[in-house]
Amino acid sequence: MAQNILIVGGVALGSKAACRFKRLEPESHVTIIDQDMYISYGGCGIPFYVSGDVSDVHDLRKTSFHMLRDEVFFKNCKDIDIMTETRAEKIDRENKLLHIRRKDGSTDTLAYDQLVLGTGSSPRRLPIPGVDLPMVYTAANLRDAEAIKEVVTKGQVERAVIIGGGFIGLEMAEALADMWEVETTVVEYCDQIMPGFVSSMFARMAQGQMEEHGVHFYVDEEVKAIEGTDTVTAVVTNKRRLEADLVIMSVGAVPNSDLARDAGLEIGKTGAILVDEHLRTTDPLIYAGGDCAQIPNLVTGQPAYFPLGSMANRQGRVIGTNLAGGNAKFKGAVGSFVVKTFEAALAGAGLSLSSALKAGFDAISVQVAQLDRAHFYPDKGMMYLELVVEKETRRILGIQGFGEQGDAVVGRINTVAAFLEDRPTVDRLSNVELAYSPPFSSAMDILNALGNTAENLLDGRYRPIDVDGFAEKWSSNGDGQCLVLDCRARQDGEPFAQKYPERWINIPQDELRQRFKEIPPGKKLILVCNTGVRSYEAQLNLKEMGLDDPVSVQGGMVTLNKCGLDL
Amino acid sequence: MAQNILIVGGVALGSKAACRFKRLEPESHVTIIDQDMYISYGGCGIPFYVSGDVSDVHDLRKTSFHMLRDEVFFKNCKDIDIMTETRAEKIDRENKLLHIRRKDGSTDTLAYDQLVLGTGSSPRRLPIPGVDLPMVYTAANLRDAEAIKEVVTKGQVERAVIIGGGFIGLEMAEALADMWEVETTVVEYCDQIMPGFVSSMFARMAQGQMEEHGVHFYVDEEVKAIEGTDTVTAVVTNKRRLEADLVIMSVGAVPNSDLARDAGLEIGKTGAILVDEHLRTTDPLIYAGGDCAQIPNLVTGQPAYFPLGSMANRQGRVIGTNLAGGNAKFKGAVGSFVVKTFEAALAGAGLSLSSALKAGFDAISVQVAQLDRAHFYPDKGMMYLELVVEKETRRILGIQGFGEQGDAVVGRINTVAAFLEDRPTVDRLSNVELAYSPPFSSAMDILNALGNTAENLLDGRYRPIDVDGFAEKWSSNGDGQCLVLDCRARQDGEPFAQKYPERWINIPQDELRQRFKEIPPGKKLILVCNTGVRSYEAQLNLKEMGLDDPVSVQGGMVTLNKCGLDL
Repeated sequence: MAQNILIVGGVALGSKAACRFKRLEPESHVTIIDQDMYISYGGCGIPFYVSGDVSDVHDLRKTSFHMLRDEVFFKNCKDIDIMTETRAEKIDRENKLLHIRRKDGSTDTLAYDQLVLGTGSSPRRLPIPGVDLPMVYTAANLRDAEAIKEVVTKGQVERAVIIGGGFIGLEMAEALADMWEVETTVVEYCDQIMPGFVSSMFARMAQGQMEEHGVHFYVDEEVKAIEGTDTVTAVVTNKRRLEADLVIMSVGAVPNSDLARDAGLEIGKTGAILVDEHLRTTDPLIYAGGDCAQIPNLVTGQPAYFPLGSMANRQGRVIGTNLAGGNAKFKGAVGSFVVKTFEAALAGAGLSLSSALKAGFDAISVQVAQLDRAHFYPDKGMMYLELVVEKETRRILGIQGFGEQGDAVVGRINTVAAFLEDRPTVDRLSNVELAYSPPFSSAMDILNALGNTAENLLDGRYRPIDVDGFAEKWSSNGDGQCLVLDCRARQDGEPFAQKYPERWINIPQDELRQRFKEIPPGKKLILVCNTGVRSYEAQLNLKEMGLDDPVSVQGGMVTLNKCGLDL
Repeated sequence: MAQNILIVGGVALGSKAACRFKRLEPESHVTIIDQDMYISYGGCGIPFYVSGDVSDVHDLRKTSFHMLRDEVFFKNCKDIDIMTETRAEKIDRENKLLHIRRKDGSTDTLAYDQLVLGTGSSPRRLPIPGVDLPMVYTAANLRDAEAIKEVVTKGQVERAVIIGGGFIGLEMAEALADMWEVETTVVEYCDQIMPGFVSSMFARMAQGQMEEHGVHFYVDEEVKAIEGTDTVTAVVTNKRRLEADLVIMSVGAVPNSDLARDAGLEIGKTGAILVDEHLRTTDPLIYAGGDCAQIPNLVTGQPAYFPLGSMANRQGRVIGTNLAGGNAKFKGAVGSFVVKTFEAALAGAGLSLSSALKAGFDAISVQVAQLDRAHFYPDKGMMYLELVVEKETRRILGIQGFGEQGDAVVGRINTVAAFLEDRPTVDRLSNVELAYSPPFSSAMDILNALGNTAENLLDGRYRPIDVDGFAEKWSSNGDGQCLVLDCRARQDGEPFAQKYPERWINIPQDELRQRFKEIPPGKKLILVCNTGVRSYEAQLNLKEMGLDDPVSVQGGMVTLNKCGLDL
C-alpha cells in the first residue's frame, strides 16, 4: 500500500532518505519540508567555496553530473515534492499530522504515515558581547558562505579572527589565508588545536604547518567579547585584543532537537534525539538521523554525537530502507575524521589518548614516524602515526595520523577504522595486509610498524618518551642530570654534540658495543635517532649492557623538528 | 640459555627473522647463510632501479637512514653473522647440522638449535628454445637488475619483449618504455593481462593506460621460441615474430623447496614448504617463510602461495618471535596487491570474479565508477571499483580497483583488505566509515556506493551489464534488437543518438516519465549514463512503468571509454 512520507529537513539525511525510499517504493508519496531556500547541498564544501577551490556556490548543490538539486530536480528525477522556506512547527503524533508554517505566514497541517526528522544542527554561538554584530559568521550554511566570499573577494577583509581551532576553524583559516591573503588568526580555548581529537604532538605539527603559511594561533586563550559598533572591529580575549574586520565562530554544533522534544520524543544525554539501531525514535513511526540524532560511539559503547555529512548520508539510506519495511541498521560510529591543513592532512579514527583516558580506559599511546612508501622510492613523504591502546587488553582504541601526502595518511586511518568496531588487539595491526609495491608502501608498512611498536611497548621492551616529555626534560635540564645519546651517524649527530657539549653525545648505534664506556655514568639517558628505529635498537643494546633506564624519543628527530622544537 | 640459530637465505624473511630474534634474545647467536653476494635488499625495487627512479642499485640494499645492509652492518648494528656466497647443501635433522659449501668449494657443517628456511623462489623459465641466450633476463635479483640497466643506459636496447603481463612484467614494461624509450612489447599467454587477479574490465583499462605511453600488448598469444645466435634477435609466438634485443621473462615464481624436501620436510600442494600458523615446518625445530613457504588463503581457506616481499617481512618477524619462545601467529593472507601503471594504479585484495568461480564460489561481481573525492573538489579523479560477492551468503570475496590517484585507490583496497578475513557481508561495506572531508572523499564514498550497489544487485533491483556484455551486444547488433537508451542530459546523449539513429536514443532520466512513449516497443533496452547512477534510476523508473528487462551499463560511459570502446 502506498505510504505518505514526510521528511523535515532536506540537506543531507533528508534528501538521501527520500531518494532511497522512492527507489524502493516508487508508488509512495514523499514530501521534504525545509526552512531554508536551499536543500540537498554539500555543506562540508563551504570552506572550499570560500577558498576559491569551488568557484560557484551552486556547485555545492549540484550532482556529480552537474544537475542542480533543486525542487525541479527532485520532482522530475526523483518524483519527490519539496517545500522550501517552510518551517515544521509541531508534530501531532496522535493524529499523525505535521503542522507547518510557510514564509508568507500561512500555516497548514500535513498527514503522514511515517515521519523523518533530519533537522540538523545549529552552529554554537558563544554567549559573549558582540556575537550578533555584522561580519560575525558561523560558516554553517550557503548564505553565510556567499556573504563571506563576497566580502573577501571584494577585498573588504584585511584581518580575520577565527574562534575555535577545530575542523571548520582550520579549514576556514586556510581558505582565508591561502587564497585571499587575509591576515588570519585562530583563537582556541583549549591548550591545543583539535582538542580531544589528537595529541599535542599532532596539534603542534598541524599548527606549525599552518603557521608556515601565515596563519597565527593563540591557544589556551578565552574569547571574552567581540567589539564593534556598525561592524566588527576586534576580538578581545583574556590575554589580548585582536583587530578584525571578519570573525568566524566555529565552536561546535548543537543538535536541533526542539521539534522532537516538544513532541515528547526522548532526547539523549548529548542533547540529540534518541534513536535505536534502526534509527527509529521512541515513536516507531518517526525516524531521526544526521546532525540531530544521537548514535553510539562504537569504541566506548557510550552515546555520542557525530555531526558529519558522511554520517548523515549513510544514515539517510538506512532510514530510506526502513521506511520501506526493510531491516537496515546503523550500529554507530568510530569517529573517523580528516582535516586538510594546506599540503598536509590530519586524520584519525576512534579515541585519542586524552579522550580514551577521559572515557575511563587505562590507555597508553605509541607514536611512529616512517616514510609513507619505500624509502628508496623518490616521491616518498614522512608520515606520523599514533596508536592508542588499552594496556591490559592490548585493544586498539584509536589511531591518529599526519603527513604531507594526504591520501596516504587517510588510507592508513581508514584501514584501521574499518575494523575498529571489532575490538582488535595490536597484533591485528602488526599483520594487517596492505597492498604492497614500492610506489605505495614499504615492505613493512608504517601501519605494521605501529602495531609492532605498540607490542614492544606493551611487553616492556620499548621505553619511549614523547615530544612533550622531551621538551620538558630539555628545558628543565639546568641540573645536568639528563644526557641525550644521539645514535645517528656521525655526520648527523656530531654537530649537536658540539653545540651542546654538556647535554648531548653522539655514539652511532653500530658503534655502541665498542664505545659503551664513553657514556658518562650517573646520567639519565635520552636516546634519539632520526625516526626512532635506531634509538630503540640502542635501548636494547644498552639493556644488554646493564643499563635499564634509558628512554627513546618516539619518532626521533624528524618528530621533534616537525613539532617545532628548536634544537 | 643462549641458542644457536641458523638462517638459510637473507633477502627479506631471513634478515627480518634474525633481527627480530636478536632484539628478543641478544645473548643468542645467529648466522645467516646466503648463496648470493648481496643480502637484505628490496627486490621489489628492481623495476624502479631499471626505470631510473632509484639511481643506484645499492640504494635497494640500504636502510631508510642510508646504511648499507651488508655483512659489516649486520655485525655491528645487529650482532648477526653473515656468510655470503655460501650454499646450504643438506640438513641433517637428526644431528641438527647444516652442511654448507663455500664459493671456493670448501665445505663445512654448522650446528643449530633452531633453523630457519628463507630460501625464497626462483623465477619460472619457459621450456622453450633460446631461454639461455644472452640478453634474456628474469629481473629477479640485483645482478640481473644491474645488467639490464647497463644495456639500456648504454643505448644498446631498441626493442624489448616482455614475456608475461603480470606484476613484474608490467612494471618492467613501464620502466623500459617510460625512461629509456625502448620499443616495448608485452606478450601474455592468457586472454588478458593480470589474469586471475582482475576482471577483463581492469585489464582493458590498465593495458589502455600503458598503450597510451607506447607499450604494445599481445594477449592470448603463446611464446614458442626465443631466437638468436650470439644474442637475442627475436621472440616468436604462435602468431608472429617480434624483433627484440632484450627479453625479460616474467612468468611467475617457483618456490625453492628442494633443501626442505631433501630433508624430509613436508611440501604443500603448491610446491612450497608446508608450515603451520606459527610458520613451523613439520620439524618443530625448523621454520620456513617468505617465498619458499605455503600459507592459507584466508578467503578460500585453501593452501596458497604469495611470493611477496611484504609478506616475507611480516612472516620474518613472526618467526623471530617464535624462535625466542614466543607464540606469534601468521594466519595467512587475503592477497592484497597493487601495481603502478604509469600515473595510474591497479590494486586488489581477495578474489577476482574468475578466481572466485574457479575456487567453487557461486559468485557475482558489481562494478562502480565514481570520483575519488567530492565531485565539487578540483583535484578529483575517476576511480573504478569491482566487488566480488558470494550470491547466497552476500559475503564479500574480493575487491579490485583502478584509478589515476594511486594512493586513493590503494587506500580503498586496504580498507577492505583489513576486514576481508572476517567474512564480511556487503552491508559492512555500505556502512564502512571512511574519514570524510571533501578533499579526500565523498559524503557517500565510492566504497559505500560499491556496497550499496552490490546490495541492489543481490536484491534483484539492479540488472547490470558489463563492458564485455555491452561490447558483445553492440558489435553483434546487426539484427537491430538492441537499443541503447542514453539517460544523460541532451548535450551529452544527443550526439550519440544522431551518430547511431537506429541503435541509440537519448531521453534524459528526468524526462523519462514524460517521454516514456517515445521508447520504441519490442527492443531490448540497454540503459547508459555517465557513471551508472542515472541509468540505475532509469531502470527503476522503467520498471515502475512495466518494463522489467532493461539492463544498465555498469560504470556508464566513463567505463566504456576507459576500456577503449570506440563509440
